[in-house]
Amino acid sequence: MDWNTLYADRMALISDTSIIGLLKLAERPDVISFAGGLPDPKSFPLPRIKEAADWVLDNEGPASLQYGPTAGYTNLREWIAARMETIDKVSMTADHLMITSGGLEAIDLVAKAFINPGDTVIVEAPSYLAALHTFRSYQAELVDVPIDSNGLDVDRLDVCLNDLSRQGIKPKFIYTIATFQNPAGVSLSTERRRRLVEVADKYGVPILEDAPYAELRYEGEPLPSLVSLNPDGVIFVNTFSKIFGPGIRLGWIAAPPDVIAQFCQCKQGTDQCSSTIGQRIVYEYGKRGYIDRQVAESIPIYREKRDRTLAALESAMPPGVEWTHPAGGFYLWVTLPDGVDSVPMLAWGIENEKVAYVAGPPFYMDGRGENQLRLCYSFLEADQIEDGVGRLGRVIGHHI
Amino acid sequence: MDWNTLYADRMALISDTSIIGLLKLAERPDVISFAGGLPDPKSFPLPRIKEAADWVLDNEGPASLQYGPTAGYTNLREWIAARMETIDKVSMTADHLMITSGGLEAIDLVAKAFINPGDTVIVEAPSYLAALHTFRSYQAELVDVPIDSNGLDVDRLDVCLNDLSRQGIKPKFIYTIATFQNPAGVSLSTERRRRLVEVADKYGVPILEDAPYAELRYEGEPLPSLVSLNPDGVIFVNTFSKIFGPGIRLGWIAAPPDVIAQFCQCKQGTDQCSSTIGQRIVYEYGKRGYIDRQVAESIPIYREKRDRTLAALESAMPPGVEWTHPAGGFYLWVTLPDGVDSVPMLAWGIENEKVAYVAGPPFYMDGRGENQLRLCYSFLEADQIEDGVGRLGRVIGHHI
Repeated sequence: MDWNTLYADRMALISDTSIIGLLKLAERPDVISFAGGLPDPKSFPLPRIKEAADWVLDNEGPASLQYGPTAGYTNLREWIAARMETIDKVSMTADHLMITSGGLEAIDLVAKAFINPGDTVIVEAPSYLAALHTFRSYQAELVDVPIDSNGLDVDRLDVCLNDLSRQGIKPKFIYTIATFQNPAGVSLSTERRRRLVEVADKYGVPILEDAPYAELRYEGEPLPSLVSLNPDGVIFVNTFSKIFGPGIRLGWIAAPPDVIAQFCQCKQGTDQCSSTIGQRIVYEYGKRGYIDRQVAESIPIYREKRDRTLAALESAMPPGVEWTHPAGGFYLWVTLPDGVDSVPMLAWGIENEKVAYVAGPPFYMDGRGENQLRLCYSFLEADQIEDGVGRLGRVIGHHI
Repeated sequence: MDWNTLYADRMALISDTSIIGLLKLAERPDVISFAGGLPDPKSFPLPRIKEAADWVLDNEGPASLQYGPTAGYTNLREWIAARMETIDKVSMTADHLMITSGGLEAIDLVAKAFINPGDTVIVEAPSYLAALHTFRSYQAELVDVPIDSNGLDVDRLDVCLNDLSRQGIKPKFIYTIATFQNPAGVSLSTERRRRLVEVADKYGVPILEDAPYAELRYEGEPLPSLVSLNPDGVIFVNTFSKIFGPGIRLGWIAAPPDVIAQFCQCKQGTDQCSSTIGQRIVYEYGKRGYIDRQVAESIPIYREKRDRTLAALESAMPPGVEWTHPAGGFYLWVTLPDGVDSVPMLAWGIENEKVAYVAGPPFYMDGRGENQLRLCYSFLEADQIEDGVGRLGRVIGHHI
């Protein structure tokens, strides 16, 4: 069979596997890796998870193994609605919510419902590489707007939307991780949040707010969710990956009920419903207060790692290297002097110093960001961090 | 926000919710429903499932809650490869296999990798309605080929492919449920299986073989899987929904490794990986021989229901009504005299006799099949079947 003549056009846009090859190298046990964005397994409270799982199998066994509604388990949706009122300061009902198979499936359903080939989507520069992959898989035309230490540059967004509008182009949505951004670790300031929803509303463009890290705040006061500032103009997606565990593959979307109904139509053609047993376990776990407890217990674990990473960078980085100072989340973003290329440096670093990160280019729609890289501090053992950052300092020093 | 102006073109093709409305009516507790294709919860052996789940949480807790490889848990892929050698008579390795979030996600990944808008896909008439929905969501041009009591009419397929070829059209694949078809319950004869792979090969068109019911055989000898007849030209998809439970949302694809790699690229943009904890539970469960045992224990449960349904139809159906005689699976397909319309009859039947089924049209790409309907006998209590079929007989009698 001549398979290569049969693939859809989208495959040419999403088949770059060079990054995956490098990530595989980073998995070698002798490498200290700041690459993969994984939660710390010490944040998984197994006895409490087992308690919830046992309860579900003992009390709801047959129902938990059966198909469930496409929108998700009603009790879980109601529980999320109530919790979003506390955390995200927005009033929701079960009809505003659907359960997805992780945060990225949420993004995929939104993309599927809105994007025709050639449609424009606004993304941050840099942005979450898997979301860029998803938008490309629908053959979106990506347009990016830079971020700085206060998040998305909303003035530049305004100019960008105005330019597009003059060309007769209305983007389908603006994708943003407003809090503890992936990859940069920065957060959008409160003032910019208000401006962002105003600007988006002025042009009639919805915002896709992705909030996977927002609860993992190590200092300071919570910032208002975008959805709380304009519930009718924001599609909010979130995940249980960082507040329960990624292995359960569950997330959710909050949006106006008519919009949720469209996403459910899309999900009818993908996985029909998310794991019934997983949803019931997460509901029992959450209902007992265990998600709040897990978040509270996770924060000091991650804060210590963030602190050690920042201190180690301070002492190990050569002059001319800059990095962000995240107040939460998993990542910080390093900018090297111009002319240093993080891609070949990664291969060199794995080989010579046994240290890994994710190079900058995959976080940009057009592969720029050669002199940047992402460090993830969430997964490493805390006492490996100084050693790892020290190795990275030597790698960078060798390349400057 | 003016959401309705923003949706992608595909949404107009997949937004018909009239069927879902009727299915919701069928869920009323006073209705005897032959509608939803659900397994019998008595087929779920809860103590054995709990044993596997407890083992995973006790022994592999942190790993089971973490992200996993996009292709799936290697142990499970190897276990499936070995089992396919026994069940499907085909030699596979882990590299030929990927785990999906249910059988429909498998179909969705295949569709995503192959279908550009306007591409042709061959389907059976009638076919699985959710797969038709999935193909439509990629804006495929569907072309159908009829089935009869021996499954797909392969001579007609040959003529169809020849016609398309003369128009310069090469379909992306032929979608078939060769064994205990959904909705018709029929199976493709061995002779036609050989012809089907020959014909497909002659035109260079892959076959997408969907085998969710193949193991649930109530009599007779297993038929050769299509993938065993041409491993390089067939993409095989299957699910754990009928041999474990749908609530776990796990299935798999078997195909040449290079093709699997493309599906993995697609999955990187949807849910990234299927449930890690679910995969480990299914692996532990399967490894202990519990899937084989569950299949063996399920068969008599479903056989009895099939037998009672056939006997009840024999005594309750008015003259001029015909139905298929499945040797396995969950469904049989009823053909009414010309002019009887199963769609309004369904609303009437729910209202007046409190009995439900799925009307014929959604199983056809163009909504024909008004005088047909699907009965699912797997989910009802066995002792409701005579009553339910009796009600259906009165409904049909009223409409003839």
